[in-house]
Amino acid sequence: MADKKLVEAITSRDEDFTQWYTDVVKKAELMEYSSIKGFMIYKPNGYAIWENIQKKLDAEFKKTGVQNVYLPVLIPESLLQKEKDHVEGFAPEVAWVTQGGGNELQERLCVRPTSETLFCELFRNNCHTYRDLPMVYNQWCSVVRWEKTTRPFLRSSEFLWQEGHTIHATAEEAEARTIQMLNIYADFCEKELAIPVIKGQKTESEKFAGAEATYTIETMMHDGKSLQSGTSHNFGDGFAKAYGVQYTGKDNKLHPVYQTSWGASTRLIGAIIMVHGDDSGLALPPHIAPVQVMIIPIQQQKEGVLDAAERIKDELAEAGLSVQLDDSDKRPGWKFSEEEMRGIPLRVEIGPKDMEKGQCVLVRRDNREKTVVSLEDVAEKAKEVLETEQQDMFERAKAFRDSHIYDAHNYDEFKDIVANKPGMVRGMWCGDPACEAKIKEDTTATSRCIPFEQEHISDTCVCCGKPAKKLVIWGKAY
Amino acid sequence: MADKKLVEAITSRDEDFTQWYTDVVKKAELMEYSSIKGFMIYKPNGYAIWENIQKKLDAEFKKTGVQNVYLPVLIPESLLQKEKDHVEGFAPEVAWVTQGGGNELQERLCVRPTSETLFCELFRNNCHTYRDLPMVYNQWCSVVRWEKTTRPFLRSSEFLWQEGHTIHATAEEAEARTIQMLNIYADFCEKELAIPVIKGQKTESEKFAGAEATYTIETMMHDGKSLQSGTSHNFGDGFAKAYGVQYTGKDNKLHPVYQTSWGASTRLIGAIIMVHGDDSGLALPPHIAPVQVMIIPIQQQKEGVLDAAERIKDELAEAGLSVQLDDSDKRPGWKFSEEEMRGIPLRVEIGPKDMEKGQCVLVRRDNREKTVVSLEDVAEKAKEVLETEQQDMFERAKAFRDSHIYDAHNYDEFKDIVANKPGMVRGMWCGDPACEAKIKEDTTATSRCIPFEQEHISDTCVCCGKPAKKLVIWGKAY
Repeated sequence: MADKKLVEAITSRDEDFTQWYTDVVKKAELMEYSSIKGFMIYKPNGYAIWENIQKKLDAEFKKTGVQNVYLPVLIPESLLQKEKDHVEGFAPEVAWVTQGGGNELQERLCVRPTSETLFCELFRNNCHTYRDLPMVYNQWCSVVRWEKTTRPFLRSSEFLWQEGHTIHATAEEAEARTIQMLNIYADFCEKELAIPVIKGQKTESEKFAGAEATYTIETMMHDGKSLQSGTSHNFGDGFAKAYGVQYTGKDNKLHPVYQTSWGASTRLIGAIIMVHGDDSGLALPPHIAPVQVMIIPIQQQKEGVLDAAERIKDELAEAGLSVQLDDSDKRPGWKFSEEEMRGIPLRVEIGPKDMEKGQCVLVRRDNREKTVVSLEDVAEKAKEVLETEQQDMFERAKAFRDSHIYDAHNYDEFKDIVANKPGMVRGMWCGDPACEAKIKEDTTATSRCIPFEQEHISDTCVCCGKPAKKLVIWGKAY
Repeated sequence: MADKKLVEAITSRDEDFTQWYTDVVKKAELMEYSSIKGFMIYKPNGYAIWENIQKKLDAEFKKTGVQNVYLPVLIPESLLQKEKDHVEGFAPEVAWVTQGGGNELQERLCVRPTSETLFCELFRNNCHTYRDLPMVYNQWCSVVRWEKTTRPFLRSSEFLWQEGHTIHATAEEAEARTIQMLNIYADFCEKELAIPVIKGQKTESEKFAGAEATYTIETMMHDGKSLQSGTSHNFGDGFAKAYGVQYTGKDNKLHPVYQTSWGASTRLIGAIIMVHGDDSGLALPPHIAPVQVMIIPIQQQKEGVLDAAERIKDELAEAGLSVQLDDSDKRPGWKFSEEEMRGIPLRVEIGPKDMEKGQCVLVRRDNREKTVVSLEDVAEKAKEVLETEQQDMFERAKAFRDSHIYDAHNYDEFKDIVANKPGMVRGMWCGDPACEAKIKEDTTATSRCIPFEQEHISDTCVCCGKPAKKLVIWGKAY
């Protein structure tokens, strides 16, 4: 049976999560490896998800006054080196251009691993007085970071992302922008991707190279591992001082600016796969699915079936849904498997028997729930079902995550949880990086964040037993 | 007078076109040079135009079944070298990555100058049978080509573009797609950018490295020079054979595929500037302007003026127009100069006297024509005026171009026109590349295209006097 073969071709999610992930990426035709080690090709089904992410995030950015720009793909070595922590963080993983236009270059240029340094230069050249502030810029681009081990969407030597860069007159304003953008990421994940997040701050050892503070949204995958899904950095005036970005204030004196940056990447597609996917393949939240509805005619050779399917298609498109009709000569069961593998949120089945009754069948991707609806209100019902599906997917992901967060009150308990219970661990921390390092060494779990929502679950550090300062979320991470 | 200073700051277009262009790019804050020679920064005002170009072109592409993808920014030297003409065309101007992740690379990787070679690899890996055809892909990205002399938007070592790549089962289908995409570019230029085009084919010596045929749209700038504004290439099966892209046909035999590629770039922004701009700065066609309407209140400190301006803004936004209100504390004259420099197509002036009469004033950017309209139908009237302005800008550009195309019947006439009359020259050609070379050598004019609309204006080649084969459009070009 052809449709069975397709389903069988992917590994069971609970049997081998890593292989299942690879299978879904391949079978749903999202991405494939190129001939250059570590570099990936975003295929149409994968790139279309990114286009929808871009469109929605970009609209949210612009509502807050963000302007898009584009800066060079190459950065001179001397520019990269001006901020010490930053260059130390990135230099080991960059690609260097040493020849151009047939000549050896006098100075090496790196393919951008991130663009803070170029933005500093832009800001320095364009920021003169307090009237020029704030500058709130963003860039959609790819960045290159040489990676030894790679996985589609999660870690590759080149990936697509957006990087926002802003400068402000005051430290307070910069901090407010940093949090504002984190909240945009958080809301986007929860409302559009149906992925619950934990908002928090990174510890000193986990923060961005050059930042004063890094905030993060952490999400949990179906295997219990954490994924850092968006970060927002407050640089204070560190970069501004290193790069000489300053402005004349109302007091007629020179002041350094306060700077932020924030980014989200195609990792989000990895998160969608690993939070919502199942043994039939990808499952896309309706809000982000490039194709929301697939219409599959049953006995399409029978008179009138394809016409009816076309009419449904037109009505759904008219209602603003993204819809396709599979009128190929494959068997319906095969078509079901294909659209399930691609993660299309809603299937419409229409055949001769349905037509007699003036109805069609809606089938949700997430739970296969069927609803028989009258052809007259198929558009309205389809929208309702998609909205319910979106909400249910979020609730399901949240229930899963919440049931996989465990409290640890001492180190034995901590180690036992990390070893035996996939998920996140809540544990108090004394604030000493040595404890973080020990935990990482002993268990491979890392501090994911100091969550904004603090709770006092114990008096002592889960690692060393000394007085605790903060509640930390720990976990193994991608 | 502050507003006078701003206007005076740019060179007159007819006095020094090159300097005028540079001034507009700078004063309208479209682009600036980065610290890496030849690499540019797209500033918010410039990038926003590109975003609108992308949005509209992308929608047209998708209507014809184009799917977007993303391929690596780096290409291995060995892959580039598989198609001989292609590598010869591009190798001299590429940037080479030779170090990555702290190590010397075993093979040089070039920063993509164009992606035919990577697409060939993608096609080879994914095209198996006739059922897989056609594949109609496109990518929005930047490319790097090391340039010695650069000018904003027109020629830079990195530029933004889209590159479409398709494969087909038959030569006829590939040719049809090549022409289809050329027509999309032509319609886009004429309808959205208000720039008239001449469609035609490039001669052998001007065609793309590796193509069987290159089609082009040629436009005329205000200084009479030509700008190649979009190209579409039919590769035949040359790349397919070099890269082994083949499919099993219905006849159960292996066949090579037929391939096309087509691209348009941020050069289009250069065209907009040079076709429509004037001594007050940029002039954007309403269809492509990121901000279509700027509302400038007069005596805004008077009671009710700002409220009235806000109401107009809301109404225009409601009507689907992109609108801003300049309520800064600058003088109105200064604001006028600023929005004119930025090329905003329509200004709305509203002051106490207008309010008494229940009216406001609409001022077109292109010809400063004023229309007094009732506040009640400001949205409807603004849309009408913008549409008229869009059409008028096209007609004006077309009239200018048509009055700057000259017929040459012999070489003396030809040289006289090129030397003394800025514009394009129509002249018959024998088909010998030697004549093209001689014309270029003698006059710096090149063959722009063999226009689709042929006419027989003389029996002999405008250069050598031998029997003529084709009418060619000649001109100095950017």
